[in-house]
Amino acid sequence: MSRTLYSLCGTDRARPFSPHCWKVVMALKHKGLAYVEQPLPFTAISEIEGGVSKTVPVLRDGDRLVADSFAIALHLEQAYPERPSLFAGEGGKAMARFVESYSQTTIHPAVTRIAIQQIHDMLDPHDQAYFRESRKERLGRTVEEVAAGRDAEIRDFPATLKPLRHMLGHQPFIGGQAPLFADYIVFGALQWLKITSGSVHLPADDPVLDWFERCLDLHDGEARRIA
Amino acid sequence: MSRTLYSLCGTDRARPFSPHCWKVVMALKHKGLAYVEQPLPFTAISEIEGGVSKTVPVLRDGDRLVADSFAIALHLEQAYPERPSLFAGEGGKAMARFVESYSQTTIHPAVTRIAIQQIHDMLDPHDQAYFRESRKERLGRTVEEVAAGRDAEIRDFPATLKPLRHMLGHQPFIGGQAPLFADYIVFGALQWLKITSGSVHLPADDPVLDWFERCLDLHDGEARRIA
Repeated sequence: MSRTLYSLCGTDRARPFSPHCWKVVMALKHKGLAYVEQPLPFTAISEIEGGVSKTVPVLRDGDRLVADSFAIALHLEQAYPERPSLFAGEGGKAMARFVESYSQTTIHPAVTRIAIQQIHDMLDPHDQAYFRESRKERLGRTVEEVAAGRDAEIRDFPATLKPLRHMLGHQPFIGGQAPLFADYIVFGALQWLKITSGSVHLPADDPVLDWFERCLDLHDGEARRIA
Repeated sequence: MSRTLYSLCGTDRARPFSPHCWKVVMALKHKGLAYVEQPLPFTAISEIEGGVSKTVPVLRDGDRLVADSFAIALHLEQAYPERPSLFAGEGGKAMARFVESYSQTTIHPAVTRIAIQQIHDMLDPHDQAYFRESRKERLGRTVEEVAAGRDAEIRDFPATLKPLRHMLGHQPFIGGQAPLFADYIVFGALQWLKITSGSVHLPADDPVLDWFERCLDLHDGEARRIA
């Protein structure tokens, strides 16, 4: 069966960087499912599979087409119940939504404010124009205006991870003794930050950094293939 | 079988206010288990059951004694598996730890800064002396110094609930379609704020306020019995 993950890249197709697409890469590996990744620029997303979605990831899984990272994880859990679970039960499924909301309201805005200039610079010129316009609309400021606050944002960044840092005093993964999709949700955000800005901007002795490294080690070091 | 929940109160024994004890009240009701609540002042905690714990809640459940709200929830889940689940699986159990860490690193410090003077004023004189000293040690400032920032803290408070607010766009409870222990964790924090300060300090149209009201309605309105 053919399986294709449509994801996001800049000029360099070998460095896909979308946090939401990284969640799906880790989920596919977690389930042990083979796939081909097809990274595309922002402005080619509308052409995927005849225009099925305005955003990536989009997964073609045989005759099924699924957009949105959480919907894809739910699809994989339902379609491949005999493979390792991404949620470990209905409670885990519900609370993964809470982790997603935490990541998107707390970590994502901080990553955008730290890495916006570098994300812009990774894109091809056609995408750069789209990115400038869409971020101006979303943030009310230009790329350069947001980027001017970068140093302060980097200084404040570790504080956004307080809940995870505190939890790591109890257990090695958000999923408990082993990772679940909720780990990949937060991992995706930090992997996005690392690929675009070159660092996750955490101190060397931060337990969150240890957790991030544990995630990089998962699935034969899949997420380390991007320098 | 005799079941006693040791909890925390000020001068008025009818208004127990500890967030951690409220989590356990809701967990006991969720499991449909009868119990007697015995609220005590801070300085009487060390005398509970021969000095078993430095903090409340402590639950005596027949011949078992369990301290710490999360440990109590795990005990109830294990001891009464045939009753409604508090976690809905292993994933839910693991992620409830994340929700607990979110609540304790984000909501709890804010509640302390808003309500510290009012908590102090609820206590009997002997407890007030203990409270002043222990909070000075923990926060590095006097009760009055912390309380001076109250208005700004109230203004900033709704932002601490961004992850929950965002999640409520997907589902009515952290547990999904129905509440789980993770809901009671965050509910306990807001109930603590309401009982001590008279309000949860959220705008009338806030979805988090709707969720809080749904929690107050649970278990025959158990949590509404404290005005």
